[in-house]
Order: sequence, then structure tokens, then C-alpha cells
Amino acid sequence: MKSAIANSRLLNIAPSGIRAIHERKRATSVDLGIGEPSLRPDIAPFEAAVAWVREHGCPYTTYAGLPELRELVAAVYGGKFFQTSANVCATNGSQEAIYLAIKTLAEPGRDEVLVTNPGYPVYHKVCELEGITWRAVELDAADGFTPRAAPILAALTPKTRVIVLATPANPTGAVMPASEVRELARGLAARPGPPIYLVVDEVYRELSFTSEPHASFADLYPHTLLVESLSKSCALTGLRIGFLIGPADVVQAAARIHSLMLMSASQFGQRVALGIFRDPIRLRAQVPWYVEQRLATLEAVAANRLHVVEPAGAFYVLVRLPERLAADSTAAAYELLDKSDVVTVPGSVFASNTEGYLRVTWAASREAVIEGLRRIAEFIRD
Amino acid sequence: MKSAIANSRLLNIAPSGIRAIHERKRATSVDLGIGEPSLRPDIAPFEAAVAWVREHGCPYTTYAGLPELRELVAAVYGGKFFQTSANVCATNGSQEAIYLAIKTLAEPGRDEVLVTNPGYPVYHKVCELEGITWRAVELDAADGFTPRAAPILAALTPKTRVIVLATPANPTGAVMPASEVRELARGLAARPGPPIYLVVDEVYRELSFTSEPHASFADLYPHTLLVESLSKSCALTGLRIGFLIGPADVVQAAARIHSLMLMSASQFGQRVALGIFRDPIRLRAQVPWYVEQRLATLEAVAANRLHVVEPAGAFYVLVRLPERLAADSTAAAYELLDKSDVVTVPGSVFASNTEGYLRVTWAASREAVIEGLRRIAEFIRD
Repeated sequence: MKSAIANSRLLNIAPSGIRAIHERKRATSVDLGIGEPSLRPDIAPFEAAVAWVREHGCPYTTYAGLPELRELVAAVYGGKFFQTSANVCATNGSQEAIYLAIKTLAEPGRDEVLVTNPGYPVYHKVCELEGITWRAVELDAADGFTPRAAPILAALTPKTRVIVLATPANPTGAVMPASEVRELARGLAARPGPPIYLVVDEVYRELSFTSEPHASFADLYPHTLLVESLSKSCALTGLRIGFLIGPADVVQAAARIHSLMLMSASQFGQRVALGIFRDPIRLRAQVPWYVEQRLATLEAVAANRLHVVEPAGAFYVLVRLPERLAADSTAAAYELLDKSDVVTVPGSVFASNTEGYLRVTWAASREAVIEGLRRIAEFIRD
Repeated sequence: MKSAIANSRLLNIAPSGIRAIHERKRATSVDLGIGEPSLRPDIAPFEAAVAWVREHGCPYTTYAGLPELRELVAAVYGGKFFQTSANVCATNGSQEAIYLAIKTLAEPGRDEVLVTNPGYPVYHKVCELEGITWRAVELDAADGFTPRAAPILAALTPKTRVIVLATPANPTGAVMPASEVRELARGLAARPGPPIYLVVDEVYRELSFTSEPHASFADLYPHTLLVESLSKSCALTGLRIGFLIGPADVVQAAARIHSLMLMSASQFGQRVALGIFRDPIRLRAQVPWYVEQRLATLEAVAANRLHVVEPAGAFYVLVRLPERLAADSTAAAYELLDKSDVVTVPGSVFASNTEGYLRVTWAASREAVIEGLRRIAEFIRD
């Protein structure tokens, strides 16, 4: 007899390791697990959106989203190549933008998607769901897992159609240096034959703490698809508003898939976004808190003599487990939760080369981060 | 050279005929085209949702949605078989629920999906996007395109895995009689072998104007997937909140696809929905307006001596074109727009057996419907 769920690809995809440990969390737990800001969002854009709905109702938007919003988003993120509303589709969070980019650009059974190890597991799970082959390029632990051009360019094959990259990255907090951004753009542009598309997940774009100015692929490589979101910069994970930005032909094709899948992103959510992008300084309003939080985190790391991958961006720190625990970060994370009541995410969730680490989110409250790191140190020493 | 858009299936899907004519609309046009309520939504649930965000922020919900909301939705729609939160996934509108149901239940290259002609074109376009074979069962124009059990049961083959059905239906307004609901449930249950899943699009459920009480497949056939939405009943098309309701194993698998595609539906949108489902009389608050509007529409139809398929539900009426125009409803609709400035949707958009009709939406304002029908009659007579 056929099983209830016919989609055989779905059955082979590993469940979310992040949500799995989260479900074991107790009311008392110090939660440094899920990647979610503990700050409150600015309420003013919500109030403005409700005022708009009171006056105009809550009608459909066009499939790709409100033209004014898309123009403003293009102005903030679009760089040299993607300057108009035709280059932007508003999505149900960045996750939908990633899904659309892969589904639009890669042909099952023919093309290959390249991801990095470690990386956000959804990139390769989306490929698996869609029946698209993927491969991973290993980033170097000794180099802080920094994404660099050379290993990515070396990993390309004639089948590579799409590269998915995040900077700042999850789970490492690594930021791709500007020189590497330029080198990768140059290297990809120099390749003969059909273009390789570069999907750049920038959900942590505002949360970069290097002294370098941001180097954008949207200024350097025309076959870029940027993935943006309000989730992290504005503490709006639950609003589910993100953006896919790139060449108009690709974005318009993605918007068609988007329209068949779910019509459009929420009018209300897009109105909240409009309030933010009309005054784009709001995108950075919470950055000073993260700067301080990062310093406090690194101080606590030092005080507790923990070994970590120092993050240049995002809001995670990878804590290295001692040899006795390093072979099984999943067991370590669950034992830490059971014994010390701290939620973290095992490095094995992300890739084999982050086995031996725990991902600690420092977007939690200051007290939680400090107390959590103290307990982690204690647990590791025991 | 490869084209920018690799997904070859996408390239073969016809564009939306509904949106196409909508894009030709002028500022002066009488718009009886797109299926969108002209009423304003109740603002109270929005204000309550903002108050919640002010206090709690806007965090992620679980993938399938807020447990309290899903419980309340199960209580309203779940019938005998689907009584718990595990039977419900909150989606980005009903369109996502349809997409998830088809993608979860049908295996490309193996299974077949059965739809009705006429029907909402997205059903078969989703199949095309996913590489799933579909076939249509023709509903009888002389019978007002009423969905009946016998022709559906007669159309099943060993490959049929999913049936997609709408009641009340778009574009016809037809409602499946209770006796036919029971007969189809019985007929499907009596089939040997693996179950055939029945996806029932009920976005117009609250807008049924027959004297019969609602007969729910959720009471009669355990392999049902209900698709519900706040869009039509509550004038919330832009909120993008719908629900997939059915057997827990199917809904949980669909929620996994949903999580990989877009994480979850909006926290804010779900909070608005919670305000409605905590006081579910709100789901029917606008029904009296539709009852009156339908009568006014049918009066105008009679006064203008138009020939229509009289709607038992939803908010459309199919106007029959005279012989001289009936062979090309697309040409007629565009000519009507050019000459008389009325937006309608050509019947050919929906199926070959609605060629010869125009779909007229009477969810527009009273004045627009009366003036639009007057102009249609004038156009037809000319």
C-alpha cells in the first residue's frame, strides 16, 4: 500500500536539528539555541500599517509586492545592477527567497548547487526537496570558516549552476572579506559559458562588525541573487518579510513560482516593511545593541576561558568542545541541556566540520548569555 | 546557451488570465474582474494583534502555526475526523494550502491529479509546476456546472491519487449538494486499494446561499484535505492567512515542506486570525451583506435580460455571451473593457466549457455591479 505521503523526496530529508533540541527546552532553560533576537521591534511601523488598513482595507498586493516598497528595497540593497522594482520580489521571509532562487535557477537532474560547509542546512534541504543535486565546499576551521574565493572557484564543475553563500554566515559569524568578494566576482565573471548564479544570503547584513565597508556582489557580479530579510536586523522574525533581489528576468520568473505557491507576501507585512524602508536608518537602529552584546559575549568567553570561533558578524559564537566531548556534539548539547539547563545547537547540525562545536546565540538577553556561557564552561570542565 | 531560468516546467505554464486583463484596467473602469471583497475588514483583530506585538515582540511561531489558533480552527472546520491542532497547518493564504496538499500527496511521474472543468486555474498550474500529471472532469453547463459525484467517480483511474474540488466554486458559484457530498464520500470510501485524497477548496465556505445546511467531507471521508481562508469571508485577501486541515500524518508532512519553503505563516497574521477564531461569529459577520448583494445582482441581471448561471455561493456570476461573441470570450472581455470600460474575466481562462461566458464579480460595490451589468447588457445587445 502506498504511504500517505507520496512525495518520496520529503521522506529522506533530515528533520531540523535546531528545532529538535528547542523542543526539549524547559521553562527554566537558559536559551542560547534558536537564532532569534531578544529585542523588541519598533512598534511605530505596525501602528502606521494598521492606520493604512483602517483606511484602505487589506487587499491583495501585486504578486511581487508593493512597487513602492520594491523600489526602496532596490535603492538600499540593489547596488549597481539591481536598481528598479523589477529587480525585487517581496517574499514570506528570506527562507522563501532562498527556495525561489534555487527552484527558479536549477533544473532537477541536470544542474548542481554548490553550498558551503558549514552552512545553514536549509540550503541543501531545499535542493533535496526539489530533487536537485548539491555538493559542499569545505571551509577551513583554522581560518575561522571564512568564505574565500579560491576554494569555491576550485569546486566548480561544468554542472554547477548555482552557488549559495552566506555572509555574515550562520553558524560561524564569519564575514567574507571585501577582497575575497571581489576575487570571487572576478573569477565567476571570467568563466566561459553560461553564467553561474550566486545566491548570497545576507540576512545578517546589518550585523557585521568588521571595520571594512560592506562589499556587495550587487556592484560586482550581475548574476547575483541577494536574499535579504527584516528578521534579524529589526527583530521581526515572525513578520515573515524578506526579499529576493537580482536580474529582472530571474526575479520575474521567481515571482511567478511565488504567485503559484502562495500568491504574494502579506499586505500588512509589506506595509510594516514600507515604514522601515521609507526611513532606512531603522534597519540599523538595533546595531549598537549588537555591538555591545558582542563585546560582552567575548568578555564572558575570555573570563570563562572558552575556545571559540570569534564572530565577525551575525549573532552566534561557535564554542569548541574539549576532546572528551568533541566526537559527538549532539550528545554534548543534550547533556548540557539535561545537566546545566542551557539550550545550544550541536555543531553537527550544520556540517561534519563543525562537529566538535556548539553554536551559542548571543542575541539572547545579556544575563542569559553571561549565565549560559558560565554554565557551558562549568559543564566543559567537569 | 542555457536560458536564465532553468526550471523548464515554469516556462510552459500559461500566465494568469485574471491578472492579465486586470493590468489593462483604467482609473475610470468599473472593476468586476478580480475576486476581491470591496468591504473593509474588521479592524479590532488588527488592533489586538498590535497590542500583542507591543508586549511580546514578533517572534517565530512553530512551523505549523500557533497551537491555540490551530485548535480553534479545528473546532470550527475539522468536523468528525480532524479535531486537534495536529490536523491543522496555518499557511500563507489558501493558495499555499493547495500547493502543499498537491506537493505532499502526489508523486511526479507516478500519480495523477483530477480537477474539474471549470475550476480555479491554479490547481492544474501547480501540478504543471511540480511535474505532476493532471486530468479534468467536465462539469455540465446545463446543470449549472454543479459538481456531482457520478462524473468524478467515473473519471477515476488506478493512477488517480488526488482530487481537487471547490464548493462553493470559482468561477461558477456552484455549490455541491449535500446528497452529492455524501455520495462522493461513500464512493471514494468504497474503492479498494490505497486511498484517494480529496482536496476540498472551501475559501467560499461562508458564502453559500442555499437553504441546505453545510455538508462537510470532514465528517464523511477521512482522506479529506480542507483548504480554508480568511480572504473572502473577512475581506482579508492581503493578510495571506489560510489553513490546510486533514489527517495528521499528511498535515505534518505538508508542514515540513512549508517549513523548508518559508518557515511559517506570519505571527502577526496568525494573531489577527486568532482574534477572529476566538469569536468565530466574526467569520460570518459580512454574510448578510453578500446575501443582499446577491439578490441585487440577480435583480439587475433580470432587469437587463442577461443570461447567467445563477450562483448558489461565492460572489461570481457567469454571464452567457450571445452567439456572435461566444466563440471568443477573451476578445469579448477585452472589447468590453475598451468600449464600455468594464473589467470582467473571460470564461476561457477557466476551461473550454466556460468559453462563451464572462465571469462577473459581484463582491464589488453595489453601484459598480449595477452599472457594470447595465453596460454589459448594452455591449451584448450592440
